[in-house]
Amino acid sequence: MQGDEFWARLREGKVVLGACVMYPAPGIIEGMCEGWDWLWIDMQHGQYDYGTVLHAVRTASSVGIAPIVRPATHDYGLLGKCADTAPTGLMVPMVNTPEEAQQIVNALRFPPLGMRSYGGRRPIDLCGRGYYQESELLVMLQIETEQAARNAECIIGTDGVDALFFGADDIRVRLGLPINIPVVESKELQRPMAKMADAARKAGKFCGCVAADPATLRVALDMGYQIVVGGGDVGFLRTVAAAKLEELRQVVGGGKS
Amino acid sequence: MQGDEFWARLREGKVVLGACVMYPAPGIIEGMCEGWDWLWIDMQHGQYDYGTVLHAVRTASSVGIAPIVRPATHDYGLLGKCADTAPTGLMVPMVNTPEEAQQIVNALRFPPLGMRSYGGRRPIDLCGRGYYQESELLVMLQIETEQAARNAECIIGTDGVDALFFGADDIRVRLGLPINIPVVESKELQRPMAKMADAARKAGKFCGCVAADPATLRVALDMGYQIVVGGGDVGFLRTVAAAKLEELRQVVGGGKS
Amino acid sequence: MQGDEFWARLREGKVVLGACVMYPAPGIIEGMCEGWDWLWIDMQHGQYDYGTVLHAVRTASSVGIAPIVRPATHDYGLLGKCADTAPTGLMVPMVNTPEEAQQIVNALRFPPLGMRSYGGRRPIDLCGRGYYQESELLVMLQIETEQAARNAECIIGTDGVDALFFGADDIRVRLGLPINIPVVESKELQRPMAKMADAARKAGKFCGCVAADPATLRVALDMGYQIVVGGGDVGFLRTVAAAKLEELRQVVGGGKS
Amino acid sequence: MQGDEFWARLREGKVVLGACVMYPAPGIIEGMCEGWDWLWIDMQHGQYDYGTVLHAVRTASSVGIAPIVRPATHDYGLLGKCADTAPTGLMVPMVNTPEEAQQIVNALRFPPLGMRSYGGRRPIDLCGRGYYQESELLVMLQIETEQAARNAECIIGTDGVDALFFGADDIRVRLGLPINIPVVESKELQRPMAKMADAARKAGKFCGCVAADPATLRVALDMGYQIVVGGGDVGFLRTVAAAKLEELRQVVGGGKS
Amino acid sequence: MQGDEFWARLREGKVVLGACVMYPAPGIIEGMCEGWDWLWIDMQHGQYDYGTVLHAVRTASSVGIAPIVRPATHDYGLLGKCADTAPTGLMVPMVNTPEEAQQIVNALRFPPLGMRSYGGRRPIDLCGRGYYQESELLVMLQIETEQAARNAECIIGTDGVDALFFGADDIRVRLGLPINIPVVESKELQRPMAKMADAARKAGKFCGCVAADPATLRVALDMGYQIVVGGGDVGFLRTVAAAKLEELRQVVGGGKS
Amino acid sequence: MQGDEFWARLREGKVVLGACVMYPAPGIIEGMCEGWDWLWIDMQHGQYDYGTVLHAVRTASSVGIAPIVRPATHDYGLLGKCADTAPTGLMVPMVNTPEEAQQIVNALRFPPLGMRSYGGRRPIDLCGRGYYQESELLVMLQIETEQAARNAECIIGTDGVDALFFGADDIRVRLGLPINIPVVESKELQRPMAKMADAARKAGKFCGCVAADPATLRVALDMGYQIVVGGGDVGFLRTVAAAKLEELRQVVGGGKS
Repeated sequence: MQGDEFWARLREGKVVLGACVMYPAPGIIEGMCEGWDWLWIDMQHGQYDYGTVLHAVRTASSVGIAPIVRPATHDYGLLGKCADTAPTGLMVPMVNTPEEAQQIVNALRFPPLGMRSYGGRRPIDLCGRGYYQESELLVMLQIETEQAARNAECIIGTDGVDALFFGADDIRVRLGLPINIPVVESKELQRPMAKMADAARKAGKFCGCVAADPATLRVALDMGYQIVVGGGDVGFLRTVAAAKLEELRQVVGGGKS
Repeated sequence: MQGDEFWARLREGKVVLGACVMYPAPGIIEGMCEGWDWLWIDMQHGQYDYGTVLHAVRTASSVGIAPIVRPATHDYGLLGKCADTAPTGLMVPMVNTPEEAQQIVNALRFPPLGMRSYGGRRPIDLCGRGYYQESELLVMLQIETEQAARNAECIIGTDGVDALFFGADDIRVRLGLPINIPVVESKELQRPMAKMADAARKAGKFCGCVAADPATLRVALDMGYQIVVGGGDVGFLRTVAAAKLEELRQVVGGGKS
Repeated sequence: MQGDEFWARLREGKVVLGACVMYPAPGIIEGMCEGWDWLWIDMQHGQYDYGTVLHAVRTASSVGIAPIVRPATHDYGLLGKCADTAPTGLMVPMVNTPEEAQQIVNALRFPPLGMRSYGGRRPIDLCGRGYYQESELLVMLQIETEQAARNAECIIGTDGVDALFFGADDIRVRLGLPINIPVVESKELQRPMAKMADAARKAGKFCGCVAADPATLRVALDMGYQIVVGGGDVGFLRTVAAAKLEELRQVVGGGKS
Repeated sequence: MQGDEFWARLREGKVVLGACVMYPAPGIIEGMCEGWDWLWIDMQHGQYDYGTVLHAVRTASSVGIAPIVRPATHDYGLLGKCADTAPTGLMVPMVNTPEEAQQIVNALRFPPLGMRSYGGRRPIDLCGRGYYQESELLVMLQIETEQAARNAECIIGTDGVDALFFGADDIRVRLGLPINIPVVESKELQRPMAKMADAARKAGKFCGCVAADPATLRVALDMGYQIVVGGGDVGFLRTVAAAKLEELRQVVGGGKS
Repeated sequence: MQGDEFWARLREGKVVLGACVMYPAPGIIEGMCEGWDWLWIDMQHGQYDYGTVLHAVRTASSVGIAPIVRPATHDYGLLGKCADTAPTGLMVPMVNTPEEAQQIVNALRFPPLGMRSYGGRRPIDLCGRGYYQESELLVMLQIETEQAARNAECIIGTDGVDALFFGADDIRVRLGLPINIPVVESKELQRPMAKMADAARKAGKFCGCVAADPATLRVALDMGYQIVVGGGDVGFLRTVAAAKLEELRQVVGGGKS
Repeated sequence: MQGDEFWARLREGKVVLGACVMYPAPGIIEGMCEGWDWLWIDMQHGQYDYGTVLHAVRTASSVGIAPIVRPATHDYGLLGKCADTAPTGLMVPMVNTPEEAQQIVNALRFPPLGMRSYGGRRPIDLCGRGYYQESELLVMLQIETEQAARNAECIIGTDGVDALFFGADDIRVRLGLPINIPVVESKELQRPMAKMADAARKAGKFCGCVAADPATLRVALDMGYQIVVGGGDVGFLRTVAAAKLEELRQVVGGGKS
């Protein structure tokens, strides 16, 4: 799924299922991503930096999966540099106030909405010098604190913001919930998650979250979530590596063989 | 498991379970390898080169899993350069004759067994300038063609060779078998696999193979295989990513959601 | 031309012709830059990051062309890190107010003018520990918005700022002009361009711009511009690659051969 | 043009126009290659190594230009590693005898034609585990010495070889011709060039050469050449950079401005 | 010495001797660091960036020396990214006010002390998803200006700050002292150095400095400094390389041999 | 000292003092190499690969020290690729027979002496397309076994070979001498060392060795050695780091502080 189809599906009210990559080897994208709709390339908590993101965005394009980059920072210039890799979108973490939302719009939208600097190499190389008037960039902001949850309406209401993304783990930490408690077992978690989705819907915009199992996904769909992360390289690797090891150890016999 | 423990287990007749990495992001090793005994770092068909292997060997050491590097070539100097990364061992692919076996011993063993060049930076940095008299390097050669299978006894009989490793996929290709046929369903595959193990046992040495499911593993153990590869980054990623996607698509409903 | 000669020419009122590199392969510098006076290494819209800039600055020095780095950010620490690569100068984008100018001076000038941190590895390696008292660093700020154009006098008036650079493309975007309109055909573009040059001249300082064709260059020289960018890797590649392709397609005959 | 279309055009007797890249920045491919049919990625005399080739092949795919990699070596294992990046083809330099041709076929073709090792990560990731029975890899060998020219018929006659490529510069050096003498002005150069084309045609196979100007191209087409290199990053950069500099220096006035 | 032992020694009132690395080749760590207690990996004035820091932290762990990273910036997101490499600590340069100290605590401490974002890949890979409740991260702030020295008590008094580090070179620059004047010869330097140590002691916290010779070290120990930098790659290399060259030139005879 | 001066000194019968780098961070070259005549960049036992060698050769040039690269292999194509980085020379390890010497000449000398392939990017970028007729490349072969010592006259007698280099460590290993025995204390070591120098002198060519202390250097000069390695990054770092640590531990008091 390339960027155009990604947008089309969102606008038709459909769901887009994404996978996350945190380890910066583009081969992972070729090996793992068949069939997924979009790819979350993580510079914040994953091990990507600018150079490896550029390779990853290209690789995602070459295998037809829409790349969305998560930068680590709100810095105007560094956000612009991420946008200049020409991904389908950016997911910006830890946005707590409408002022921060506006600051991010300033970095990512061209005038008059924002103050993004013109001239990104890859957008021009791929789309020509008129890219600033044409290409679409999904601007998705993460709601990850109680303050952010309270400000969700104003944040999504900021012109130039397209979507919100629910940061469940940081909310768990801030609410003092067990870090592995499932969404379906915690009303405290569902409350801000539903509230955020409402804010997005009222604004006529989109919302996303992680939903890596059927039960969570059902809850999320019911709330109106369309941009869904179903898993990622690290989770896939850890789960199955541990299970496989256990399975084989049984055959060998005894603890650590 | 560090190198010493790896050798100890082999000599006690026990099994060592290994995982393979093909995508050159050392984080994968930290994320995936807990509990496994050894790590196969693949420069031949995987996407590792010298620089990334050096990082991977260090990372494996730092998390306590014994690294075994598979180089792509038989070139004397390049084999030596791989050995100088100071892994637990090297697995050399496509060794078809005892002459080739001797050539590899020349590159990897110091005199009098071979002609390896002295001075590797990492061995000296970690073990001191006397490393050439002390450190153990597993030299494991891959049997992957019919010619190699016929020569297995002479190859393992070469002084300085420690182990053989059965290359099932290349044997399948050469015998014209379906590429995915399980070991347990193919006598044609079991025959050279057993013959190779016999050769190793008679020489008082070791043998290894891929055995990524309980049935194959049981067969391998019965034949005397001790060095076992239970899976790898790519297999883990593909399998579980596809299964997860399928599972979530069901909830979303309809083909590609 | 090394840094000393670069400064000498500026002070003699002469013009320095520069080329821009956006693709991070230092070989380009060796292959393309013979005869040019200075090199613009672009971290903002080009595909350079810290590591590749460090290589590029070294390569520029080794072939005798004065390197000027454009960072992506105004962050105090990251600006200092760029300065520590020991280029001839820094061109800082999107400076709109004298407050921002002062903030950049703080990052790039040692006390008493600013608050730059002492200890850069490359300056010390090349010039000794007294480098902070001796070495010259061109601090050039980009005027790229209407606000910046209005503030040009105050910005260039800031102690520690050496030059202004006219960002024509961003001005075009902000004024709603066609992105490819030539300077010579647009009074709206010439007005801030001339005003900026006046501000620099009145302050006894320097100014620069892109002037990649004779007509634009003549206009720029008349306005007093001395620091001129005549082209860059990407433009050179695109233009001649397309022309060559067209030329050869003619011989082959028919559309896409 | 992807690999399938590349092959289709060759088989229809049409010409494919290629560009060469020697500087390892994948952005060059995005910036320069629009409209060209194929891309020569040079590991021999260019500045690519394994890691950067892998990025370049991916980038070429993502912008739809068929990548052909030129390795530096004839080493069995390293050739296989290049083939495992899954390019459209390999151009192997300095093949002087049919024995060398067979050695290269051994490295690049699966049994029964050769002895290539199965398991390349990228071919499997993109095409599945049956790739060895399906995917096409252009094996093109370079004729660059008088000995090679004499052996051209036997070399192209080797089963598994698809094409020959004329190495004009090395022939010039070996014949003692001026290194810049045009093909059209040198009968001594045209003779082996025509002979090589004849050998390819008689064998029902293909041939290629550099033809960076209309006159050379016409000669080459008349001889039956279909795989044509029209230029490359370095030539484009040098030519136009020097011309542009000259043009601007004129305006500035005086020698070096 | 791993992180646990590092903390234990500090708490017992003992000294930890550290070495600094500025050149980003992890082999240096393996070759140079035996016996040292901790390692200062310098992103500010050294030539490390994110990718090379990640390799360096891993290498330090693998050879048992506690890594402390010095970032270049105060940016919330980028500080978090450094913390996510899972070092023993961070040394943050140029902290002049308690407000800045709080801002850094916000980036590096989880709630309730700060606002650090949860999810760092390496901490989870090594310690599990509960790492935010368990792992210790030394937060050490650098006092490098007169303003900072005046604010030392408030800065170290900030909850979440563990230690101060005296930046002698920047203090020398700001006080207009000779850049190479030894601590023992300058009361002006000793005064803020002692004052800073007092502030740390009163707060029940720790303090550090560079002390690369016995005389300086004695002064520092008397003041209560426990976290000591004894030298670094560059100093070691320069000193001995120059001495060795001089020694050998003597034998060869005459100036430059 | 650039290449020209390096050759001039050799031809005047003077000594050139070189330093070795094994850790691939070009900053080391800038920080350590002032005053040395040439630089040995080690791909065999050091941690350099093609990409980092290219950076190192450029850096050496930019600080005016003549780079000599030691490749790991004798492979024709890979040797050519090293030569194409345009160093002052290549030092090829483990040359045991005149046949091997000729094979290396084939890879490194243009016709008629050898069969080197024309077209190296960096030589052309720096010297123009006529470089093959002009530039000088020192071809130095290492004598490191008893067989090689016996063949020294024939090896140095090979047309196209400029110098021999004595590999003392590998000779020690092969003769069963203690690995750290000084040259001055071992007649067994001096014998082949003198014999090799004689062979070079008789052939009117040059010879080199490691001589990192005055006593060894005196012996080497007396034998006629002109190309001398006085030390290297790793030795400098280890020696002084350990001495410094010891010195400081004394002050702190007690074993490991």
